[in-house]
Amino acid sequence: MTTPWERVKRTLVGRPLRTKSLERQLLPKRLALPVFCSDPISSVAYATEQIIMALTLGGLALLHVTGWIALAIVAMLVIIIVSYRQTCYAYPGGGGAYVVSRENLGVNASLVAASALLVDYVLTVAVSVAAGVDAITSYAPGLERWSVALSVLCIVLLTLANLRGSRESGRGFAVPTYAFIGSVYVLFLAAAWRLLSGERPRAVSADFTIEPLYQPVGVVAVFLVLRAFASGCTALTGVEAVSNGVPAFRRPKSRNAADTLAIMGVLSITMFSGITVLALLTHVRMTDPDHPGRLAGMPAGYVEPTALAQIGEAVLGHGFLYALLQASTAAILIMAANTAYNGFPMLASILSADSYLSNQLHKRGDRLVFSNGILLLATAAAVLLVVFEANSSRLIQLYIIGVFISFTLSQAGMVRHWQRTGPRTPGVRRRQAVNALGATVTAAVLVIVLITKFANGAWLVCLAIPGLFALMKGIRRHYDQVRAATTPDTPVELPGGAHAMVLVSRLGSPALQAVAYAAATRPAGLEAVHVCTDENVSRELREGWERYAPSSVPLTMIDSPYRTSVGPALRHVRDWLALHPGQIVTVYIVDYVTGRWWEPALHNRLTARLRDRLLLVPGVLVTLVPYRLASGELRAERQPRDATRLAVLARQPADDGDQAGTPVED
Amino acid sequence: MTTPWERVKRTLVGRPLRTKSLERQLLPKRLALPVFCSDPISSVAYATEQIIMALTLGGLALLHVTGWIALAIVAMLVIIIVSYRQTCYAYPGGGGAYVVSRENLGVNASLVAASALLVDYVLTVAVSVAAGVDAITSYAPGLERWSVALSVLCIVLLTLANLRGSRESGRGFAVPTYAFIGSVYVLFLAAAWRLLSGERPRAVSADFTIEPLYQPVGVVAVFLVLRAFASGCTALTGVEAVSNGVPAFRRPKSRNAADTLAIMGVLSITMFSGITVLALLTHVRMTDPDHPGRLAGMPAGYVEPTALAQIGEAVLGHGFLYALLQASTAAILIMAANTAYNGFPMLASILSADSYLSNQLHKRGDRLVFSNGILLLATAAAVLLVVFEANSSRLIQLYIIGVFISFTLSQAGMVRHWQRTGPRTPGVRRRQAVNALGATVTAAVLVIVLITKFANGAWLVCLAIPGLFALMKGIRRHYDQVRAATTPDTPVELPGGAHAMVLVSRLGSPALQAVAYAAATRPAGLEAVHVCTDENVSRELREGWERYAPSSVPLTMIDSPYRTSVGPALRHVRDWLALHPGQIVTVYIVDYVTGRWWEPALHNRLTARLRDRLLLVPGVLVTLVPYRLASGELRAERQPRDATRLAVLARQPADDGDQAGTPVED
Repeated sequence: MTTPWERVKRTLVGRPLRTKSLERQLLPKRLALPVFCSDPISSVAYATEQIIMALTLGGLALLHVTGWIALAIVAMLVIIIVSYRQTCYAYPGGGGAYVVSRENLGVNASLVAASALLVDYVLTVAVSVAAGVDAITSYAPGLERWSVALSVLCIVLLTLANLRGSRESGRGFAVPTYAFIGSVYVLFLAAAWRLLSGERPRAVSADFTIEPLYQPVGVVAVFLVLRAFASGCTALTGVEAVSNGVPAFRRPKSRNAADTLAIMGVLSITMFSGITVLALLTHVRMTDPDHPGRLAGMPAGYVEPTALAQIGEAVLGHGFLYALLQASTAAILIMAANTAYNGFPMLASILSADSYLSNQLHKRGDRLVFSNGILLLATAAAVLLVVFEANSSRLIQLYIIGVFISFTLSQAGMVRHWQRTGPRTPGVRRRQAVNALGATVTAAVLVIVLITKFANGAWLVCLAIPGLFALMKGIRRHYDQVRAATTPDTPVELPGGAHAMVLVSRLGSPALQAVAYAAATRPAGLEAVHVCTDENVSRELREGWERYAPSSVPLTMIDSPYRTSVGPALRHVRDWLALHPGQIVTVYIVDYVTGRWWEPALHNRLTARLRDRLLLVPGVLVTLVPYRLASGELRAERQPRDATRLAVLARQPADDGDQAGTPVED
Repeated sequence: MTTPWERVKRTLVGRPLRTKSLERQLLPKRLALPVFCSDPISSVAYATEQIIMALTLGGLALLHVTGWIALAIVAMLVIIIVSYRQTCYAYPGGGGAYVVSRENLGVNASLVAASALLVDYVLTVAVSVAAGVDAITSYAPGLERWSVALSVLCIVLLTLANLRGSRESGRGFAVPTYAFIGSVYVLFLAAAWRLLSGERPRAVSADFTIEPLYQPVGVVAVFLVLRAFASGCTALTGVEAVSNGVPAFRRPKSRNAADTLAIMGVLSITMFSGITVLALLTHVRMTDPDHPGRLAGMPAGYVEPTALAQIGEAVLGHGFLYALLQASTAAILIMAANTAYNGFPMLASILSADSYLSNQLHKRGDRLVFSNGILLLATAAAVLLVVFEANSSRLIQLYIIGVFISFTLSQAGMVRHWQRTGPRTPGVRRRQAVNALGATVTAAVLVIVLITKFANGAWLVCLAIPGLFALMKGIRRHYDQVRAATTPDTPVELPGGAHAMVLVSRLGSPALQAVAYAAATRPAGLEAVHVCTDENVSRELREGWERYAPSSVPLTMIDSPYRTSVGPALRHVRDWLALHPGQIVTVYIVDYVTGRWWEPALHNRLTARLRDRLLLVPGVLVTLVPYRLASGELRAERQPRDATRLAVLARQPADDGDQAGTPVED
């Protein structure tokens, strides 16, 4: 709260913004695409390699199914995008899985969706950042041992960018997204050119052999293929963000959001298909990092680069274009985490407004974003990155469950939505059928993901989601109880009277000032109270009282048999209250305002204990009388002061039936 | 502060004691000896082995000087004890090095002494506990890898025992001290018996050879001998405790303290000499743990036992007496740490009363001991034990410097003392000569210790002591500045008037109760203030105000362009103060009293920020109006309440020249 901190904060996050400038933060499609779609677009950078890694658990024999799996994923992507385009129109106010399922499926379903989404936002940040750092270390293998530190650094930078507000982020994030899209298409063109010239680019790993972990026959083969499909489904993550973010689009909001989804779909499908085809043509081989050491034939000290890096190197060589591909891949992946920085705090704020999370997450920060939510997300993701050592493949195992839970609930909710609203025209029936198909397919994938990934870490998510669910229910119950207990039913009654006591520890201007302030409030009764813990101090006080204290304030001195001051002071207050039922006591205590970090160790320790104990006594108010040390005075002067005069919206005198002026709505 | 904690605290540390029962805590000699002398007595358990370890850096060639070094140390011990006996008589109120040098050598010398003592108290705990754990692991070598954990456990137990108060500690510590003294004398008798029977007991290490690290000739030999002497001086530590603790003795305090010192001297000298003689006779060999691996001829897996354990095993065999010797050695060493538990908090309290340390260290805890000092000491010692891996030989390198700094300053102070006080009779001249001899000898040893141990870790102490010195000077300067700034010079002036504002965040009984309480204090002006951050909440408040709020309290609604509540509230207060110069504002805010550990995360976050910011505005008081949640209500009911009625010592009405009753001195 001191100036240096305020100044740093302003430099990093910019000036505060007014509510009315919210409108000006709305995003045109060309900026909305990078802000909301960098997650699904960037996931093509790792989806293909996840399929290959999963299949090679059975050696090289299963690799020929890669194409079929990719085809299934493309089909899924089409179904999901078509379904979600409908959500954009049906929920122009933002149709995240939470909102849709709350409205159509009830509270519990919506909380399941919310829990899944919260977990997934965190994982989006962790996976994207880890994969982005992978792209960097594939280009410069020496950096590998710094990957955890690099990941955490990325999170810090993202957090600062997001605390500045969404439009600036939109701008900052447009370049990497478009650069990535551009370089992947350049890669395709270069590959087409070389293939047409009769060349066959080969990946660095093309000649390696892989020792199978399982023999890919019968049930095992089916399991491995399903698991590869489940891993590839990472390409589907992040669609939620667009439908959730409809209100942030320029008008016509729904139309623009649906169009953005369609553009995103075309980009994702072409890029994912192209990369998969190139991986097969260049014979990329990769192994699962959970079962390492099964590659044979590679040079000593070989560290597996990402599939996209291998393709890029094979097709583009080691020139500028390859460097650009890796740089933009790293950039878009790190920026993809930004999707979650938009979604998580908004969802947390909605949940908080519904009393399912602490009301600290509801308040908008002064840059129109939800600062507390951003900080919570960043912390959780950083912890995951450190615990999982920034290993993207291990993090991905946790990733897809939450996505498909929310997909399924959202689509099921849309089915109910069409049922409940509007006449059942053929158009409505068609839309309902689309969403029903979406719900069925995503539910099926959810089952596959659960079965094939449970043992690989997904169990963690299966604990986290019910945990969050229970937490949110508990918080809501608590707030409900408090609200029920604090709802007024009758007008409040005034206490019979109030007495003021000033606690004086020694003769000095802080205590004397407190007495003067207390006297200025002209209480019905006022006394200064001193607990005798040190004879010299008490004598000095007694002798100087008459001379320095405001006249007419009596000084009561209390014995302290155990030399503590808190207990006797409390008892004196209790004794007064026992003799004066129905009245209250205001206890004035001096609070030293310090300005240096070490000063609290030398002052105020007793004040805090006294305050906390006094507040437990029924009928006691505690008035803190600040005494500013020289350093505290300086700090007070450095406080930022807004020159804007405040509008008093309404002044409502309760003793006068007529309201003073019409309240001005904001 | 809740019941369970209170209950645990009472169980562990006992009932609170009154000031008057302080007298009954005074110690007879038979209890004072274990309380104040377990440190010097117990150090005979490791002093001999420190000499041997240091000498064998030059192989076995130098071992024959052991006896001469021991003789020099015995002579030192006699000089120091005679010197300190004089201090006991000259300072019946407690003559620690700090007090003696403050009175005779000035502030800076006394602070150097105090810094040295504080460091040494911490090291006494660390060294004694580590050596005690060595005694245990010598008996049961399997426990060696748990030595850090065992050491920390010992510190926890000692801390609890000392928080209970000093007499109980005296009793609990008498048994191990007398058991140790007894078993060492039994060891001597058994050794004498076997020697007279013509046997020659040999230590387990008697036949090992030691590879020299240095060739013991010329200057190197002198250095090694001086270093061995410096190490052996650990036998001299802890004499300070008796002269410091004179007030804790039964009357005649000085006489009893001086006698205790003499008894201690006789015990220490005989035990140290006997153990050294037996170590030479049984041919104990030990190596410095900083230069390991120089022993040859020992069995595989040999872990060096302590010298006393080797002697005990050689003389007593593996029976009951050997077990008793090791057990009582461990016990007295761990109890020796108790000396510091008496001295450190007392010194910290004196320093705190002189404003050289935070005033938190001055307050006596409710068991008549200085709880904060005890906790500080225990934490520092535990950190040292963990950092130095509970290795007593490495800790001893840090140990002796502080002791000899305070010895030297204390003796030099006594020389000044005899100069300044009383007539210069022959008796006074003799006493002065004794102290001058003490000062000279200890100063010489200090130089030897500094030179021979600096590189082995003593440099750490040479940083810590000036650091503490500077810290204490700084704290004193801070308190002096604050005291100068807060000394009253003229009677305080009353502010021109006071206005009350109640901050209302929503319509509910907490806010309404706050309004009622504020109204009950009948302020000159009163308004309720609401910052509009959420339209629904504001509308509900506006509509319900007239019905539920106390009549005649107007409600002011303020716009919040940035949707924050702290800033606008602050500005409203500042605006009022600007319009009413010379007046003050009391701001009432609701403070939720919670009873469960997680509830603060859901309530009160805004309150704390508001409170801290408001207290920075000149002319503002903050009144906290507690609202007890159901759990907070329960916590309030569980608060301990003392049935004792408090004596009001004096009531001094300032409007009436006559004092109401004679103040009763406690």
